[in-house]
Amino acid sequence: MPELPERAVLLLSGGMDSTTLLWWMKDRGIQDIHTVAVDYGQRHRIELEASASLSARAGTVAHRVIDLDLTQIGGSSLTSEEINVPAAEDRQQTATVVPYRNTLFVAAAAAYGETQGIADLFISPVLDDHEAYRDCRRVFYDALENALSLGATHDTTVRIHTPFVTWSKADVIRVGLELGVPYADTHTCYEGTRPACGICDACVERLAGFRTNGHVDPLDYKTRQPN
Amino acid sequence: MPELPERAVLLLSGGMDSTTLLWWMKDRGIQDIHTVAVDYGQRHRIELEASASLSARAGTVAHRVIDLDLTQIGGSSLTSEEINVPAAEDRQQTATVVPYRNTLFVAAAAAYGETQGIADLFISPVLDDHEAYRDCRRVFYDALENALSLGATHDTTVRIHTPFVTWSKADVIRVGLELGVPYADTHTCYEGTRPACGICDACVERLAGFRTNGHVDPLDYKTRQPN
Repeated sequence: MPELPERAVLLLSGGMDSTTLLWWMKDRGIQDIHTVAVDYGQRHRIELEASASLSARAGTVAHRVIDLDLTQIGGSSLTSEEINVPAAEDRQQTATVVPYRNTLFVAAAAAYGETQGIADLFISPVLDDHEAYRDCRRVFYDALENALSLGATHDTTVRIHTPFVTWSKADVIRVGLELGVPYADTHTCYEGTRPACGICDACVERLAGFRTNGHVDPLDYKTRQPN
Repeated sequence: MPELPERAVLLLSGGMDSTTLLWWMKDRGIQDIHTVAVDYGQRHRIELEASASLSARAGTVAHRVIDLDLTQIGGSSLTSEEINVPAAEDRQQTATVVPYRNTLFVAAAAAYGETQGIADLFISPVLDDHEAYRDCRRVFYDALENALSLGATHDTTVRIHTPFVTWSKADVIRVGLELGVPYADTHTCYEGTRPACGICDACVERLAGFRTNGHVDPLDYKTRQPN
């Protein structure tokens, strides 16, 4: 793992993984953290509100919302009303992919970082994401890191830190519980409801992660499957 | 140079280089061309209008405007009203750089391409751009091509075609004149005025390119320096 920087930009969605990463970064002594949330036209606005309030709670230096409206590109149930969100049992997680979402998000974070003189970027893919999302693999971030270094305005070594990329969702939750991450205030549900739906892929994975750690998820759910 | 595809997405700014590339692609027999213009909050809207009308004139399959508002990221005189556009004699071309502009544009074009089943992308950096713009170098596009292939939703070989990357601006104009590119309708000026200012870096380079080819630029200018 690369040495940790003093200043960094974190892509903070307001979900469990990126929020745990924010608390982890603070615990590791990174002083100067700028968080970036992307408004990509997601159906649920709860996510953006969670990101802003969690950033403030963690005492970051700045929080920036960048508007990258991916609804105009199409191709995903996370942004399109025409495609139904798949239930976990359907195992059609690729239906929730927005093409090149992480590429665009990291590039936007890199652009913001450049204006701040920061070349260290953090993002929180976890092991569970790899199967359905090719842009959650470390090999992709190595390639993107190289492209961003070559594409920076000035000669720069951009680093994309993915400290959780080999961790399971349960590992993330275990560490987060130790660090006191306020999980009741993070947002996960693909349906974007409060209480969370409890049946979409994201809810089911989250609930399983807490069960593995012998903890009850503090979030409110409409239903918890399996009960 | 890689083999040419039958279907492709072209980043068409409505400027001289990308418009010449569109005519070049048609001349090379590429049948199914989708053009993408990015609305990045540029001060001049003329560029977007030129892009749409030139795409229609070339008989493309589709033209898509993607909104990536880079004004919120800042750092460039092309989007910020606070920074003056440098005159060519100032040689401060880097002041006109939006961080990671080409990275974001190509990633957006790739995302749109993926929804259309197209993995061949065209963009028109030229040799003259290399000095000030690191993201106009082929080494950058090789790296980005690799990242986009690894980050695609499905296993894909993405190709970023840059046929003009070793051509001077004058070379582009020479070929474009042979192909009948309607240069009077392309837009170049950084100031975004019509008639064009004739003194910004982009105007000066354009005028020089026509002079080198022994042609008079058909565009209207407020002033042509040197006269």
